[in-house]
Amino acid sequence: MAELTARLRRLHVLGSVSGLLGWDEQVNLPSAAAEARGAQMALLAELAHAESVAPRLGELLVLAESCLARGELDAEAAVVVRAARRDYDRAVKLPAELVAEKARLSSEAYHAWASARAARDFATFAPYLEKHLEIARREAELLGYGGRPYDLAIDRHDPGLDTARVDALFARLRAGLVPLVRRIDAKGEAARAGGGHAAELKGFDVEAQRRVVREVTAALGFDFSRGRLDVSLHPFCEGSGDDVRLTTRFDSDEPLDALYSSIHEAGHGLYEQGLPRERAGTALGTAAGMAVHESQSRLWENQVARSRAFWRWLEPRFRAAFPRALEGVSGDQLHAAANAVRPGGMIRVDADEVHYNLHILLRFELEKRLFDGSLAVAELPAAWDALAEELLGRRPEHAAEGVLQDVHWSGGAFGYFPSYTLGNMIAAQLWATAKARLPGLEEDFARGDFGRLLGWLRAEVHAHGRREDAFALTRRVTGAELGPEALLAYLDERYG
Amino acid sequence: MAELTARLRRLHVLGSVSGLLGWDEQVNLPSAAAEARGAQMALLAELAHAESVAPRLGELLVLAESCLARGELDAEAAVVVRAARRDYDRAVKLPAELVAEKARLSSEAYHAWASARAARDFATFAPYLEKHLEIARREAELLGYGGRPYDLAIDRHDPGLDTARVDALFARLRAGLVPLVRRIDAKGEAARAGGGHAAELKGFDVEAQRRVVREVTAALGFDFSRGRLDVSLHPFCEGSGDDVRLTTRFDSDEPLDALYSSIHEAGHGLYEQGLPRERAGTALGTAAGMAVHESQSRLWENQVARSRAFWRWLEPRFRAAFPRALEGVSGDQLHAAANAVRPGGMIRVDADEVHYNLHILLRFELEKRLFDGSLAVAELPAAWDALAEELLGRRPEHAAEGVLQDVHWSGGAFGYFPSYTLGNMIAAQLWATAKARLPGLEEDFARGDFGRLLGWLRAEVHAHGRREDAFALTRRVTGAELGPEALLAYLDERYG
Repeated sequence: MAELTARLRRLHVLGSVSGLLGWDEQVNLPSAAAEARGAQMALLAELAHAESVAPRLGELLVLAESCLARGELDAEAAVVVRAARRDYDRAVKLPAELVAEKARLSSEAYHAWASARAARDFATFAPYLEKHLEIARREAELLGYGGRPYDLAIDRHDPGLDTARVDALFARLRAGLVPLVRRIDAKGEAARAGGGHAAELKGFDVEAQRRVVREVTAALGFDFSRGRLDVSLHPFCEGSGDDVRLTTRFDSDEPLDALYSSIHEAGHGLYEQGLPRERAGTALGTAAGMAVHESQSRLWENQVARSRAFWRWLEPRFRAAFPRALEGVSGDQLHAAANAVRPGGMIRVDADEVHYNLHILLRFELEKRLFDGSLAVAELPAAWDALAEELLGRRPEHAAEGVLQDVHWSGGAFGYFPSYTLGNMIAAQLWATAKARLPGLEEDFARGDFGRLLGWLRAEVHAHGRREDAFALTRRVTGAELGPEALLAYLDERYG
Repeated sequence: MAELTARLRRLHVLGSVSGLLGWDEQVNLPSAAAEARGAQMALLAELAHAESVAPRLGELLVLAESCLARGELDAEAAVVVRAARRDYDRAVKLPAELVAEKARLSSEAYHAWASARAARDFATFAPYLEKHLEIARREAELLGYGGRPYDLAIDRHDPGLDTARVDALFARLRAGLVPLVRRIDAKGEAARAGGGHAAELKGFDVEAQRRVVREVTAALGFDFSRGRLDVSLHPFCEGSGDDVRLTTRFDSDEPLDALYSSIHEAGHGLYEQGLPRERAGTALGTAAGMAVHESQSRLWENQVARSRAFWRWLEPRFRAAFPRALEGVSGDQLHAAANAVRPGGMIRVDADEVHYNLHILLRFELEKRLFDGSLAVAELPAAWDALAEELLGRRPEHAAEGVLQDVHWSGGAFGYFPSYTLGNMIAAQLWATAKARLPGLEEDFARGDFGRLLGWLRAEVHAHGRREDAFALTRRVTGAELGPEALLAYLDERYG
């Protein structure tokens, strides 16, 4: 096992280098250096591929499996060996050329997407998307997912999940969510017609925002001796262990955007910082999957940081940071702004938590159709717009607020979107359980104390690595099957 | 040749990844992530070593050499093949264990040096220096430099140079420089006694400094679409081609430190941005050596940016950026501050350009004696102090301003110091030639136009890569042999 885990650790270290280059690409890269970065990423992908298919790794797996069969290894080792076997089998089936091609394409496509979005012109991005879809189909053929490439896409982010299971969960969600959203929207409209008006948040000094989001994420438990917070076009979290990097973006007229995107990414970062670092590179030191990852970011962003109790703690700090901008804005207005429901919004990352999952249902539906061949890339913008009208109540005005709004497809990250909504479901289930198990939890928040919740998540979720898939983890921690009911109940309670 | 250059390019790309990680370590790394970064760097070094000694690379070199012998390759290819052969032979002859031992020692020695410097206690650092010298001697034996290890140390930074040639040049420099410095110091003393007094530069807003150094380095020609400028403890330049990264540091009471260190690093960066990028990874796309590299940084820092003409352009911009801090400071005082001569300084990196080369003569003399065995490590501090008195006019008060001041020896980087002074000589020769060839050059500077000088350096120096060593390059461009005369004349004219 020692040689096997040493090899897994090498692969992890090599992957962490690619991760850092990816972070740097979005945070620091000079505009003309995209090609040079692409060459670096392609070479690293090739080297990682070579390491991941090394015959010696295959031999070590056979040896470990025979030890397992003879009962000479414990359950922990079994988790490591099984996950390593799965990764090894996948890696040996993917030719190095294909892996390098995808890495190069992703780097080029990212820049093509950024330009296309700025120009609101889907056509210039379409060829990259075509190419990514073609690669995804080739990968599916090679990995034994012939004819069901979307199952592979989903499984990659969430081991154990597939299209049918997500479809069934999303159908139940949609059945409950669509009428609930109608009801909440109607209520909001009535309130606005009745003269309730929102505060205008403008002129929030960016340097002060930077200090506040750092203070808030540190208070939640993010360890800045083991991580950073920087600026990028699209907020994200990268890295693991002792080097976890969050990004956000600042706009003086959107102080809540920086705040909530930072808290969201810090939720991811807290999970990464909480994984057992001595197990890095093995399944025991790896996140359970993207759905569980998103449950962590969503829980902190929504259930915790949009609560009244949280704002009781934050409000005086916010006022101290932005004395001028908050003149004439009441505490109630501030809390209302953090919980504002905005019907008709077209941008997923700006969506409130009531409408958010409708954006995901839209993307899941389109990805499914792109993959089963019933939708061509050229038809995608029209299909997007039609579905937006059906689910969100209106059509985007241009591609930048429609089909070009997300970064994911530029990296070939199909099958990722469902994880967001699965994460919201899990977050709601974890939240209900945490409140039941940790009495007085929200009073902690009002004092700026988030340690009990973080400690519980560390013990119940983070410490377990990838021992279980999202279904098994949810069942163990909450005692219930993964499903949309807790999410619907939470949304109804907070907004209904 | 195509396969050979592709392999050389891979090595270059892999090296560029290590370079980026090194940059990130000094600019961004979270405090607890040093160990994780060490693991990344060690793995990349191992992978690069494996690539650099790959048997296939050896085969390709043999093939290319036989093509060369048959006259089937042009002179450009010959340059590439000869340099690649040299690197390959060196990589193959150094056992991986020795490379790893040196890396480990360097890491330990760095921390030992930092502690020793803080404690002003040479004895605790001495054993590490002994070990580094021993490794340098073993390397020399292995690489065919038995009995002349200092020649190897010099050749590593400046291919083609050796102890005897540097010795001869430095003897001539010393003969002219020592009396010149005495004369300049005496003149300065007389001026101070006569009541001339320097302006106090204090309270320069750091954000404004950041804007100014960016504006200045961009005006010199540094292409920010192919590079960046960030902050680190010690300024440096990292990267090549389309991703060249400069660093500086800001202190509100030292505005000229950020300005001149940025210009110095931008000089390095201009060279890297000017190398033929389509030749990256081969000798045709690589800097000629550290002496020529330093000539570029020094030329922009000293000959250009300390000139009257440069300050005629910069002064109004400086005043606009720092209106308060410059109240009551005249243009003459500002220019005088940029050209201040400070006799008696013990610290090389703080030295003015008049005294700087004396610091190098001292180090070269001591390294030579350490390597030829005439000086024991235990005797080094006393030898340093005696030579400081002889060359700089006084003895250091303690080891931290004497023998322990430089980081170089902790990394085993012997033979690097001479490059600084050789670079100063070359810069002075290039400057004299440029002024003769480009009439009205300094009037360009007064208008903020540095394009003619940069264009000339691009054509005469940058475009040539490593085709020639420092001697041949200087001879071709200036029509004269590399020597100290131009530097002495320049210092005499500006300060004498």
